[in-house]
Amino acid sequence: MENKGKSKPLSEVKLNKKMDKSDYKNELSSLEDRLTYLQQKVRNANLPIVIVFEGWSASGKGTQIARLVNPLDPRYFHVHTTGRVTEDSLMRPFLWRFWSYLPRRGEIAILDKSWHRLNMPGHSDEWGLTSKESHGFYYDVNAFERQLTDDGLLLIKLFFHIGKKEQASRFKKLESDPTTLWRINNQDWTQNKNYDENLRFFEKLLKMTSTEQNPWHIIESECRRHATVKMMQTIITAIETKLEEIKNPKQLPTQDRANIIIPKVLENASVDENISNERYKEQLIHYQKKMHALGDKMYMKRRSAVIVYEGWDAAGKGGNIKRLTSESDPRCYAVIPISAPTRTELSRHYLWRFMIHMPKDGHMTVFDRSWYGRVLVERVENLTPQHIWERGYQEINEMEQHLANHGTTILKFWLHVDQDEQLARFKNRQDDPLKHHKITDDDWRNREKWAQYEAAMDEVLARTHTPHAPWIIVESNQKKYSRIKVLQTVTEALEEAMR
Amino acid sequence: MENKGKSKPLSEVKLNKKMDKSDYKNELSSLEDRLTYLQQKVRNANLPIVIVFEGWSASGKGTQIARLVNPLDPRYFHVHTTGRVTEDSLMRPFLWRFWSYLPRRGEIAILDKSWHRLNMPGHSDEWGLTSKESHGFYYDVNAFERQLTDDGLLLIKLFFHIGKKEQASRFKKLESDPTTLWRINNQDWTQNKNYDENLRFFEKLLKMTSTEQNPWHIIESECRRHATVKMMQTIITAIETKLEEIKNPKQLPTQDRANIIIPKVLENASVDENISNERYKEQLIHYQKKMHALGDKMYMKRRSAVIVYEGWDAAGKGGNIKRLTSESDPRCYAVIPISAPTRTELSRHYLWRFMIHMPKDGHMTVFDRSWYGRVLVERVENLTPQHIWERGYQEINEMEQHLANHGTTILKFWLHVDQDEQLARFKNRQDDPLKHHKITDDDWRNREKWAQYEAAMDEVLARTHTPHAPWIIVESNQKKYSRIKVLQTVTEALEEAMR
Repeated sequence: MENKGKSKPLSEVKLNKKMDKSDYKNELSSLEDRLTYLQQKVRNANLPIVIVFEGWSASGKGTQIARLVNPLDPRYFHVHTTGRVTEDSLMRPFLWRFWSYLPRRGEIAILDKSWHRLNMPGHSDEWGLTSKESHGFYYDVNAFERQLTDDGLLLIKLFFHIGKKEQASRFKKLESDPTTLWRINNQDWTQNKNYDENLRFFEKLLKMTSTEQNPWHIIESECRRHATVKMMQTIITAIETKLEEIKNPKQLPTQDRANIIIPKVLENASVDENISNERYKEQLIHYQKKMHALGDKMYMKRRSAVIVYEGWDAAGKGGNIKRLTSESDPRCYAVIPISAPTRTELSRHYLWRFMIHMPKDGHMTVFDRSWYGRVLVERVENLTPQHIWERGYQEINEMEQHLANHGTTILKFWLHVDQDEQLARFKNRQDDPLKHHKITDDDWRNREKWAQYEAAMDEVLARTHTPHAPWIIVESNQKKYSRIKVLQTVTEALEEAMR
Repeated sequence: MENKGKSKPLSEVKLNKKMDKSDYKNELSSLEDRLTYLQQKVRNANLPIVIVFEGWSASGKGTQIARLVNPLDPRYFHVHTTGRVTEDSLMRPFLWRFWSYLPRRGEIAILDKSWHRLNMPGHSDEWGLTSKESHGFYYDVNAFERQLTDDGLLLIKLFFHIGKKEQASRFKKLESDPTTLWRINNQDWTQNKNYDENLRFFEKLLKMTSTEQNPWHIIESECRRHATVKMMQTIITAIETKLEEIKNPKQLPTQDRANIIIPKVLENASVDENISNERYKEQLIHYQKKMHALGDKMYMKRRSAVIVYEGWDAAGKGGNIKRLTSESDPRCYAVIPISAPTRTELSRHYLWRFMIHMPKDGHMTVFDRSWYGRVLVERVENLTPQHIWERGYQEINEMEQHLANHGTTILKFWLHVDQDEQLARFKNRQDDPLKHHKITDDDWRNREKWAQYEAAMDEVLARTHTPHAPWIIVESNQKKYSRIKVLQTVTEALEEAMR
């Protein structure tokens, strides 16, 4: 494997590598057998794999994908063509649809073109990146790739390289045959005309997104036989190395948490703020009207928002969400309640089930509990090993940054009550036959771990309170006050965002 | 509930119904309380609900949806706006995307416009129905609705009705306000100009799709207060009636199966057909090349195909699928292996998990096992009550008809081996360490029920072998012959379809 970390500049890659037919035939058949065998191992090891096919137009990506899948069991790979961007994905952060292509554990996703080209010069209209998305492009891409591999996914990135002359001659050949003429369009010729400019883009791309963990592999593609063999060898080596790693996992160092000092915030945060009945009614009408108008404005201006609710059990999340949304146009928002993940969800990265629900431009999504479960309940209840939830803070910050770059307004509320108030509400629920279903043994058990949850939430506040996705602690011993504070905060933030 | 079964012609509906403000306020608040209470009951009863909002432009559907959701917990309803058809759905059977909107049990899906209008005059380009889809429109719609309600879903269909003059005056009012001007476009005015023609369309629609089980409810909407109250009353009555039914379920008669005579087909079907090694190699190359070319042609002509594999355990489905697909462009087909449903899948109609995988135009989907599980494994293993799997035959035929109307080619293969051959393959798997994982206790148990599976499959052949979705029994004691027969059958059918 020649490309470890930073790859060679494309302009220095020798393109004259060739392979003759008889060498090729022998080589191919043994590589195919090896791949068939390895796919079974991949399934047994529950290893998810993403193979990215990037490179020049007419570099033979389609043909090579066909050769790659030839020895594979078609039930356990999926090919995604990503060249054309659908309306649905234009209206979301640019990585959104790639999340939806992620394979289940044990399966292989093959991407014909990838997220890497979305920043390509001359395509900004087509791919519709915001200027912040463009600026944060490499940061977001590297974070995304690191998150996938940290989660155990094997990412193999292949770049199919041909020279300017070869490209032009391939275009001409395709155009001369009526059955392949349709494959060539103006954009292809533009790429050839501006080959040097595109070369500089690709060189930068490869430099910026080659990491030790996720290097690029350049496949010299002027000779198709050479390209096929090198592609297969590269994939086989990557899979074998990964399987070896799985068999002999590295001991990951866990941080010594004794040295981490987190400021205590929650224990001193106020829970008591009150508002009179009359003032409540008046403010409720005032802010709900505002929410309705702002919803229309968001729709017109194609702006989106994500609202996160976390808080103590019985802090009043349900009723609070209801007041936030009930006067808005229901076609413009969705409320997503989060509970324990299903089997489908568990077979992907833990952020997957949240990403797929992120709002389209013009819409708002409210999460009733959220991705913070990773560093709250999963941490406190020991559902997830320490080294995994510890990297959650960074993953969460990166995801929220990605949303913010797209222009999404993000607000996160912690509904705060004290232990006495919670006890009173629990008892009330237990005694009221209409509310009895709202209280479970889990609630009582969580209550006993108050101090641990408080410490976990303090760390959340310390590590994920960012300018583009702030936390707001909401005094919630009085539900009416709590509702008005959320409404006021959301309306002000949306007004500010659309100023 | 005035509309039982066939509804009154729209032209005879009196539109002058009004309600004064104070009556309205009192009425509304008690209806809202009732709905809040009922939503809890709906969750407890695990009842899935779809509420369809259809009617004239500017009849107030948006406003009424907002009023309806006001008393509802936003975590358990979802509003879908279906007015604009995305590219993705244009390339699939017209009901496809409505399957994707179906709520989980205990939740409510609210549809702003619905499948009903897809056949509306003057919109054929926009909604892209094939002529067969147009001809089969009411049949497909009624089948779809019956399938949903048979599965326990509550479907409430509301038609918001206003007169021609009222519509024009509402358009003018919206146009006169700069904040609502954008809501009105040329199509709206065209609807008003051709009001009478559209009235006839709506009348026919209501007549054709009103059934005892799924009636239309006409909401006179010239007075918004009257419309709100009638909408809420209608929904409340429908939910209460349904909850009552759930509490006191009707005893459904099960057919006396002794009277059903099914021709015995499988027991006499041949398993032995052979092909020489040389002929196999030659034919394999021949047909795989053809498959590749046909795949390109399908893509160009925007035609789709669905291939179903069923058969005895160890009949060679995996290897057969591999030969069918391996030389085709992997971007144009997908293979979907079907195993036991997940929790997510179980919370919807059993056809849901298959419908969402149906191919886009230009693509082929191969199912490794399929929806026939309903009337094979679920029947034989008693996983599903008799009255439910018995209606499966009709549901399956209707679904396949719907695909065929869209222009999808459907072929269903039963890979047939005899008991001796199966036993030999089982033993071979057990002895070979590389194949050992392919044999489980389940396989041995299924084998003991050979006669029951044979009887079940005979009934499948008798009841679901249709001209547009035929069964082909494939002699599979020799795998090579079996593969060539499938390849030949598929290529011939695709050629025929694209002639």
